[in-house]
Amino acid sequence: MELTHFDDAGRARMVDVSAKENTARTAVAHGKVEMQPETLQRICDGQIAKGDVLAVAQVAGIMAAKKTADLIPMCHPLPITGAQLNFRFSERTVEIEGTVKVTGKTGVEMEALTAVSVAALTIYDMCKAIDKTMTIKDICLIEKSGGKSGYFQR
Amino acid sequence: MELTHFDDAGRARMVDVSAKENTARTAVAHGKVEMQPETLQRICDGQIAKGDVLAVAQVAGIMAAKKTADLIPMCHPLPITGAQLNFRFSERTVEIEGTVKVTGKTGVEMEALTAVSVAALTIYDMCKAIDKTMTIKDICLIEKSGGKSGYFQR
Amino acid sequence: MELTHFDDAGRARMVDVSAKENTARTAVAHGKVEMQPETLQRICDGQIAKGDVLAVAQVAGIMAAKKTADLIPMCHPLPITGAQLNFRFSERTVEIEGTVKVTGKTGVEMEALTAVSVAALTIYDMCKAIDKTMTIKDICLIEKSGGKSGYFQR
Amino acid sequence: MELTHFDDAGRARMVDVSAKENTARTAVAHGKVEMQPETLQRICDGQIAKGDVLAVAQVAGIMAAKKTADLIPMCHPLPITGAQLNFRFSERTVEIEGTVKVTGKTGVEMEALTAVSVAALTIYDMCKAIDKTMTIKDICLIEKSGGKSGYFQR
Amino acid sequence: MELTHFDDAGRARMVDVSAKENTARTAVAHGKVEMQPETLQRICDGQIAKGDVLAVAQVAGIMAAKKTADLIPMCHPLPITGAQLNFRFSERTVEIEGTVKVTGKTGVEMEALTAVSVAALTIYDMCKAIDKTMTIKDICLIEKSGGKSGYFQR
Amino acid sequence: MELTHFDDAGRARMVDVSAKENTARTAVAHGKVEMQPETLQRICDGQIAKGDVLAVAQVAGIMAAKKTADLIPMCHPLPITGAQLNFRFSERTVEIEGTVKVTGKTGVEMEALTAVSVAALTIYDMCKAIDKTMTIKDICLIEKSGGKSGYFQR
Repeated sequence: MELTHFDDAGRARMVDVSAKENTARTAVAHGKVEMQPETLQRICDGQIAKGDVLAVAQVAGIMAAKKTADLIPMCHPLPITGAQLNFRFSERTVEIEGTVKVTGKTGVEMEALTAVSVAALTIYDMCKAIDKTMTIKDICLIEKSGGKSGYFQR
Repeated sequence: MELTHFDDAGRARMVDVSAKENTARTAVAHGKVEMQPETLQRICDGQIAKGDVLAVAQVAGIMAAKKTADLIPMCHPLPITGAQLNFRFSERTVEIEGTVKVTGKTGVEMEALTAVSVAALTIYDMCKAIDKTMTIKDICLIEKSGGKSGYFQR
Repeated sequence: MELTHFDDAGRARMVDVSAKENTARTAVAHGKVEMQPETLQRICDGQIAKGDVLAVAQVAGIMAAKKTADLIPMCHPLPITGAQLNFRFSERTVEIEGTVKVTGKTGVEMEALTAVSVAALTIYDMCKAIDKTMTIKDICLIEKSGGKSGYFQR
Repeated sequence: MELTHFDDAGRARMVDVSAKENTARTAVAHGKVEMQPETLQRICDGQIAKGDVLAVAQVAGIMAAKKTADLIPMCHPLPITGAQLNFRFSERTVEIEGTVKVTGKTGVEMEALTAVSVAALTIYDMCKAIDKTMTIKDICLIEKSGGKSGYFQR
Repeated sequence: MELTHFDDAGRARMVDVSAKENTARTAVAHGKVEMQPETLQRICDGQIAKGDVLAVAQVAGIMAAKKTADLIPMCHPLPITGAQLNFRFSERTVEIEGTVKVTGKTGVEMEALTAVSVAALTIYDMCKAIDKTMTIKDICLIEKSGGKSGYFQR
Repeated sequence: MELTHFDDAGRARMVDVSAKENTARTAVAHGKVEMQPETLQRICDGQIAKGDVLAVAQVAGIMAAKKTADLIPMCHPLPITGAQLNFRFSERTVEIEGTVKVTGKTGVEMEALTAVSVAALTIYDMCKAIDKTMTIKDICLIEKSGGKSGYFQR
């Protein structure tokens, strides 16, 4: 299979998807933020405060999904039709799951990955005053459907 | 220490840094993209092609550093004075290091982390046609100088 | 009827409109800027100057219609197919009417309301040196057609 | 006093503030969204749900403050140093108060007004499925300090 | 034929293309940057360095194609399906050719012209430290297909 | 003199200007749009219509000056303190002159050139329905002052 982003001169281009069909597509991405247990405790404790850290991260992630083509140079602009972010906790980790949908000529895996990445960065930003050792980890595609390449699950 | 992003009602705000001094600040962040060895080989092989994957990722990361305040809701807008991204390879990993500088009232760790994250996402986008199992890993702050909190090294 | 922007955990999401049909949709919004009669007189007097205050406001409003999904977190991005702003005067009020059209899965009321709001803010900005008591008033939806919910008129 | 946004040919320009001093500046703006009492009840009832409507509006408003110069054509770009939005309820009205700070050559009244306007539009967007008769009202400057023109209070 | 961007009051509007059909459209634009022969030599010499000047310009041009509707006030937002930039050299000139595709209700000539313009500005920016006399020249439409007006070639 | 935009590995970076002093800087750029005499006549005839073509172009150019760092990858973000565009006519040419000012660590020539380029593209867009042979020509720097390199005049 060929790397699809380079033209004959070896330079980047936005690949021509004009001939592709519009199909319903979904992508689910995943990532996590690892932190000091006390940091996570601080997020979880005050229910209101916790709600807000994630509320801000969630809004940031959803807005970022809409900016994907503005951030990733060779991404096609896509009028996404849905976006959702969910969070789960373990002792020292906030897990983030992002789902994006579109009816279009290309898939939305970059949109889902971007939503998760920016939500993770926002959690980092909201908590960095009390923890400088947080790490963003394991951002990957979990599931993808629609389009010629069909269903993918990690 | 207090979570600094919430006002009295428990809601988010952009913290007031008006009274802080303008000082020279630097932040270095780090991250990596793990992939199939063949994918990395493909990036590395044709020297020109390789140059371009990283060239696109590098441009994307530097441009993203300038969009940080547009992506991360509570980040202050900062007129950054320098940004640089470097790449290093191992068998199945591209490591990304990002450095951002500013003379300002707040630090640029979010700018450095955003540059690294978007460079990683761009590498992913450039190669996703041949490898759907890539994972973005271990995005964290490596070093930070300037400001009241002083020098930090991980 | 349910608030449609919250997922099960009570958090915000961009509602999934993938299954909706693409239909022709129009929205008309309305708003006004109230000011000192002398301010309005100043806008109206010099015909050229007046033309320009409104010309700048009009361009700003139309450009803002295109930025709606970037401003309003849960708004779907829509490739709008037309946008128009008109102005009318009374003694101390500039009335603004904005019309936006699209063929899409969701309506364009937020686009019309955003166009009117930003046009009003621009008029405010253009005149604020001579009048600090201007007030933006009564921004609302006037008419809406297309989509499952059908025709609405206030 | 002169309208400051027009050049000799009667056309718009971004006025030259190069010679002005950098001073600490604050602006407070105000606005409200009027709605059906049942709509407001719905926002207020489920405490969590309410938190989220306003949380989304608050994030949207703060992010919009940072986009002011991108929305209002003749506004100077300003590296704002703080932004905050608060909400208050009456029977059928959500009141919004926005405060923005900067150390700069021009004031931040447009930033405060833009934050309030976009927060209001976001509340509208979040509730429009259950109430099409909401109206955004009385957006105005409440207070302003700093700069040559000094303190202003409405 | 009528200037299509003005409404009855002589003011600008985004023309209503709702009734137009979605057809496959292509536009090719052209432009050049003229510079000192030594500047061009410097770009061409070090193979790596040259690669990067054009790589950065190419990424900038493609990203700019996606921002066209955000830059040109009356342009319709279009979900472009492909974008490509190529470069050619003569003794003192870098020629730029940009091709953009879409399936939509309006053409993409502005997108192609914007891609070429921003690529030219980027070349200028990358080399301005060694040559302040560069000139951007002859940006024009070369070819256009699709839509009611049919095929055009300069 | 060295090309200043490449790091040791031959890749692009945003050059570090942290150590530079903040000085008052001005840049003046120039460009033109050549068109059919009848097109220019159409712009000039109806005084109101003419006003609007140039009014839209002028607003577009000033707003573009503020987006320069978002368009040109290695440009530093600068809080510009003034921007102005003027137009002049000959038989078949609209000449555009743009002036931008800042107090900062780097100059604003790219901002002035971008303002002129986008104003030219906007004139093109406003008139393209009646003239497909317009050409944007001779965009260059006319004058520059401030900073270590001092005064430059073409």
